[in-house]
Amino acid sequence: MTKIGSNLQIDSARLWGTIHETAKFGATPKGGVRRLTLGPEDKQVRDWFRNACEAAGLEVHVDALGSMFGLRKGRDMSKAPVGLGSHLDTQPTGGKYDGVLGTLAALEVVRTLNDAGIETETPICICNWTNEEGSRFAPAMMASAAYVGDFTTDDILSRKDAEGVTVAQALDSIGYRGDAPVGRQKFSGFVELHIEQGPILEAENKTIGVVDSGQGVLWYDGKIIGFESHAGSTPMPLRRDALATLSEIVLAMESIAKKHGPKAVGTVGEAVIANPSRNVIPGEIAFTVDCRSADAAIMDALDRDLRAAIAEIAVRRKVEVQFDLIWRKPPTHFDARLVDAVENAAKMLGYSHRRITSGAGHDACNLNTVMPAAMVFVPCKDGISHNELEDATQADCAAGANVLMHTVLALAGVAS
Amino acid sequence: MTKIGSNLQIDSARLWGTIHETAKFGATPKGGVRRLTLGPEDKQVRDWFRNACEAAGLEVHVDALGSMFGLRKGRDMSKAPVGLGSHLDTQPTGGKYDGVLGTLAALEVVRTLNDAGIETETPICICNWTNEEGSRFAPAMMASAAYVGDFTTDDILSRKDAEGVTVAQALDSIGYRGDAPVGRQKFSGFVELHIEQGPILEAENKTIGVVDSGQGVLWYDGKIIGFESHAGSTPMPLRRDALATLSEIVLAMESIAKKHGPKAVGTVGEAVIANPSRNVIPGEIAFTVDCRSADAAIMDALDRDLRAAIAEIAVRRKVEVQFDLIWRKPPTHFDARLVDAVENAAKMLGYSHRRITSGAGHDACNLNTVMPAAMVFVPCKDGISHNELEDATQADCAAGANVLMHTVLALAGVAS
Repeated sequence: MTKIGSNLQIDSARLWGTIHETAKFGATPKGGVRRLTLGPEDKQVRDWFRNACEAAGLEVHVDALGSMFGLRKGRDMSKAPVGLGSHLDTQPTGGKYDGVLGTLAALEVVRTLNDAGIETETPICICNWTNEEGSRFAPAMMASAAYVGDFTTDDILSRKDAEGVTVAQALDSIGYRGDAPVGRQKFSGFVELHIEQGPILEAENKTIGVVDSGQGVLWYDGKIIGFESHAGSTPMPLRRDALATLSEIVLAMESIAKKHGPKAVGTVGEAVIANPSRNVIPGEIAFTVDCRSADAAIMDALDRDLRAAIAEIAVRRKVEVQFDLIWRKPPTHFDARLVDAVENAAKMLGYSHRRITSGAGHDACNLNTVMPAAMVFVPCKDGISHNELEDATQADCAAGANVLMHTVLALAGVAS
Repeated sequence: MTKIGSNLQIDSARLWGTIHETAKFGATPKGGVRRLTLGPEDKQVRDWFRNACEAAGLEVHVDALGSMFGLRKGRDMSKAPVGLGSHLDTQPTGGKYDGVLGTLAALEVVRTLNDAGIETETPICICNWTNEEGSRFAPAMMASAAYVGDFTTDDILSRKDAEGVTVAQALDSIGYRGDAPVGRQKFSGFVELHIEQGPILEAENKTIGVVDSGQGVLWYDGKIIGFESHAGSTPMPLRRDALATLSEIVLAMESIAKKHGPKAVGTVGEAVIANPSRNVIPGEIAFTVDCRSADAAIMDALDRDLRAAIAEIAVRRKVEVQFDLIWRKPPTHFDARLVDAVENAAKMLGYSHRRITSGAGHDACNLNTVMPAAMVFVPCKDGISHNELEDATQADCAAGANVLMHTVLALAGVAS
């Protein structure tokens, strides 16, 4: 096998151009992107991506959950390809880089190898996983979770968004319900480039995060059932106010996460008052909780403390609180060989780097349960993500794509 | 003038029947009513009311804000009529009695006088005031506020609901934008029957509340601007969480109202997270506050304490909080002569009674600023209102209607 040195680099301007070209699909006035999974803007970016893959000579197929795979042949087609990629859906008011960078960097790797006439030993396969974000359909990282067998395809197809539209209906409506069974496309390993979505690399002035672990996640659905009553004529001591109850739960979640910090976070992200009116005491509220830690024992402690706090609040305020764990993802420990490959690529290219834990969940965390996987992080401005202000530099994006490419080349091998 | 004794009573079964007949317009599965002002269900009940008024021989007219007036002639038409009535709109999940009882009891008074062949000296006029509830358009008691000159008709016509529909458009869409200028229909006084919407009469086993005062109201619109960020990768100390901020404000409102209690209440009734997602820290929340007291000095203290608490929370959490007073209604002190008339009627009819302060705002509170006004309360079950479970007994409703009738007869006089 031929060894490729640090002089092989991706085309930074071309990568930057594709990021900004696709950002128009769902562009928001504040410079972000609103591209909810399987909506019309997701169809636009998927069509763009399919065309770009085909133009780069890839064989594209789509699985039954809409995940897209672009295969670049290798010398030895008996081997499972090395996978690389991420996702193209965004949060309701997301940024231009989350998921997009990893998917378009994978495309850029293929374009660079094509331009340089490099054939790999093992084939490579670039991926766009459906619904990584989880903001339209739960759970997040839905398609990669089904890929690894955490859910059946039929289960996921029946999940509904807030308007009652199923995943199956949404896939059909944009023409992305593919023929390939979920899980049929095998990989010998998977590498995902992503913005850090946290403040550490920027604070330490490091270009590359060699991701060796990922936080576990607890997702809960909650509902508070107090009592609707007139805001003017109901004395304070007789109230069973669902919003005051939620307020105590939100502050309890905050203090519990701080108590178990710094390796813990906890967030109430959604809260919807039923039939709100300015002169009615809120009687019912639905809410969601997201708790994370890279330490399984801390995850257990977060769960225990939060349940105890909610029970105490509910009794004291004479309200009913339903609180259900709907998803538990254990912490991720990425494959040591692949993590080393990422680190070696960063070293070889001369980028400053450090080992890091992923605060966010990623498709690579799911995939790591059935194949060797690893991730590459690059800094994002002020650690901001899931926000229209999300930002990253062209140089850092290019550095990440270079590390991705050289990691993939090390894993796939170069045909002599 | 002839004196009418306690043997003249309204038809309890007929009143009860009209309450339950009109409850079908917007009936909810849980036994409540959803009849938002100027919506299709409000048109249904208005049409029913107009037909019933005309069948009872009343001359009906509608003013430019949709308030409906049914005039019953008196012997001396040079005198301004005695007004009685309430409203037929409801909260989003309201009950069958709030407003409805007072309006249909007014109709029942007319029917009873018709059946008994009684002519009053002064004419009487039964009223259905537009948008008492304020849950579709702000402010509440909109039409009676415009009637007394607190707002111009054009100002109120331009108010928008959450979907951007103006009051003018809503009136036109149901055909209830009348010809009569707002305020043209004069009254020599106004009496409103209503359920208490609080727990006092029931707790003291009293049938009639002789309402001598009403709470003042402060309404605020608030907005919290924190920072949207990833729920997994943003460390707890770096967050600017709009929902955690709101939670502190909700609990501050609660403790401030308790501190100034029992003559104070405070409620956050609405809170809407912008672009909510379960794995995004809420970055922006709009909310509303409703504070009340029958004591003007306590109202000032509530305002001062709440503003101070919000300022402290905003600085500490590094978020921006916009907080604007959008409506201030001073406490009401009802007309002493009319309050005495209500009390005398209750005494004459032999009902247990007590003086009481209205916790809720009512059209009669507005009207009291330009004419003598008073109110009659009857108990409601568990003090519950603005809730589908709102309930009252047939006997109490009839007792209230009898007190209403005899108060009106005392004010209007009976032609000999």
